[in-house]
Amino acid sequence: MAIYLTEADVDRLLDMELAVDALDEAFKARAVGEVTNTARSRMPIGGGSYNLMAASWPAKGVVGHKSYTAGPGGARFHVAIFSTNGDGLLAMIEASRLGQVRTGAASGLATRYLANGGPISVGMIGSGYQAETQLEAIASCCDVTSAKVFSRREESRDRFAAAASERLGIAVAAAGSREECAEGVQVLVAVTSSVDPVITGDMLSAGMHVNAAGNNSWLKRELDTSAVVKCDVVVVDDVDQAKIECGELMRAAEIGRFSWDEAIPIHAVAGGGHRGRTDSSQITLFESQGLALEDLAVGERLYRMALEQGIGVRLPG
Amino acid sequence: MAIYLTEADVDRLLDMELAVDALDEAFKARAVGEVTNTARSRMPIGGGSYNLMAASWPAKGVVGHKSYTAGPGGARFHVAIFSTNGDGLLAMIEASRLGQVRTGAASGLATRYLANGGPISVGMIGSGYQAETQLEAIASCCDVTSAKVFSRREESRDRFAAAASERLGIAVAAAGSREECAEGVQVLVAVTSSVDPVITGDMLSAGMHVNAAGNNSWLKRELDTSAVVKCDVVVVDDVDQAKIECGELMRAAEIGRFSWDEAIPIHAVAGGGHRGRTDSSQITLFESQGLALEDLAVGERLYRMALEQGIGVRLPG
Repeated sequence: MAIYLTEADVDRLLDMELAVDALDEAFKARAVGEVTNTARSRMPIGGGSYNLMAASWPAKGVVGHKSYTAGPGGARFHVAIFSTNGDGLLAMIEASRLGQVRTGAASGLATRYLANGGPISVGMIGSGYQAETQLEAIASCCDVTSAKVFSRREESRDRFAAAASERLGIAVAAAGSREECAEGVQVLVAVTSSVDPVITGDMLSAGMHVNAAGNNSWLKRELDTSAVVKCDVVVVDDVDQAKIECGELMRAAEIGRFSWDEAIPIHAVAGGGHRGRTDSSQITLFESQGLALEDLAVGERLYRMALEQGIGVRLPG
Repeated sequence: MAIYLTEADVDRLLDMELAVDALDEAFKARAVGEVTNTARSRMPIGGGSYNLMAASWPAKGVVGHKSYTAGPGGARFHVAIFSTNGDGLLAMIEASRLGQVRTGAASGLATRYLANGGPISVGMIGSGYQAETQLEAIASCCDVTSAKVFSRREESRDRFAAAASERLGIAVAAAGSREECAEGVQVLVAVTSSVDPVITGDMLSAGMHVNAAGNNSWLKRELDTSAVVKCDVVVVDDVDQAKIECGELMRAAEIGRFSWDEAIPIHAVAGGGHRGRTDSSQITLFESQGLALEDLAVGERLYRMALEQGIGVRLPG
């Protein structure tokens, strides 16, 4: 039986714990070769692009893709899930909220794996739609005691600070600059669509963990090369995709300051094959581009829950 | 407004003339750079594969993909069409029948472009699901006076001959061998899933046009290399896709008997940039793998017609 889930259905079904758990399971499954993922491909559509990315997880009986148009009029996302047992379409899911939550969940998990243990303070650079779930996910995965937020418009950072304080029950303060935001925090998050780097090497201090969760285009960078070089442990969500989308690592590699051999896939850390951080003074970096396997893992959970709870419109197929 | 079309809906809306016209328009649009197409990608799903291929046609306001699982339990196809103007999903279409008709239409068009004019006799090697629409499309595009059909099982070729005679109003006879099937015909069609070549060089005669419309895997071949070498004009539906899927051309190229520089994309012929056949004694070959742009072109027509006629289930999105 195939179902259609709207954004409202997804919002009703999805919470951060579920997404974190789904991603953790998927990364561990990928570490033992149970999951296949293909990098995003892009196609021109006039004013914007059409994006397509796929993943399979036969042990769960599912394969699928995310596709979306992105352009001046905004972006529209769908995740489609098919049976690997010949049963065809299982679910067509509107996936803006799904994408926001799974992108947060990836950073939350990476922070749990890579940051030093104990209570942490988080610095957020960026206060948009994707920033909300970044902080929520890190708070869900770690013991966050306080946070700071910086974005270019004072109004935006004030609004984010107030909303996040209220929603997460953590003291979140607006910071006057990127540098102030990074000062004294154990975890620093960049979640921007900035073309120019928002994190420079001098903003990083010993023991810090950094999530670069914003853009996924090689035309953009969130870290400058001095920051990349300062990171002792570089973890990516997917090496193939990072090689075509991760502007800061691509540039650092191109000029010989970084080698792709140093890039550790998150599933190697999740599966225990790589230790990640080996010293509390190391600086760790997680580069998140966003993977089809994340969409599939969360989408599969939503599909099962929707069936159980009778949510969604049944498709004729 | 987004709609879902079942196989029954497609069957009701789609006929061969519409598919031929849609493909001709799409090939001509591609010739002037209005259409983008990406080759099929495959992903393992346990016992089979997940296949994904995309195309965009911004001048028509559409972009989309075909995706299907193929395995021991058969194949399940869907074509999804999205707006390039930010309006999201337009249609989700079950696409077995659509694929069968558009694959026929491609061979029909290629035959119209490449075969010598005048009344023709057609030899069909293969009598399966895809064979039906091959002969129907050629009859729709050319003046077919008679046909022969060969397939390994006598029962299958007899059944095909009887059904096609009745349906198309042409004398279709069963042939006792592949060689007999090729003898004296002006157009020869291979539409098999054979691993080993079904067309050898000695079966080709001056002035013949050949459609190789069967498998789309480099593991298989419908023509042997002597047949490839004998063809004066080699037309492919898409060069990129032929380079990864067209077993006979890939093998001939690998051993230095064919150069990809000789491969002429069908859209160059459709758009008038390439003359195709230049002499009535030449042997022409059309290699069809099946393109996303064909699915998009036909799917877009179906979507518009379904809206006009109130066919299909409206999706919530």
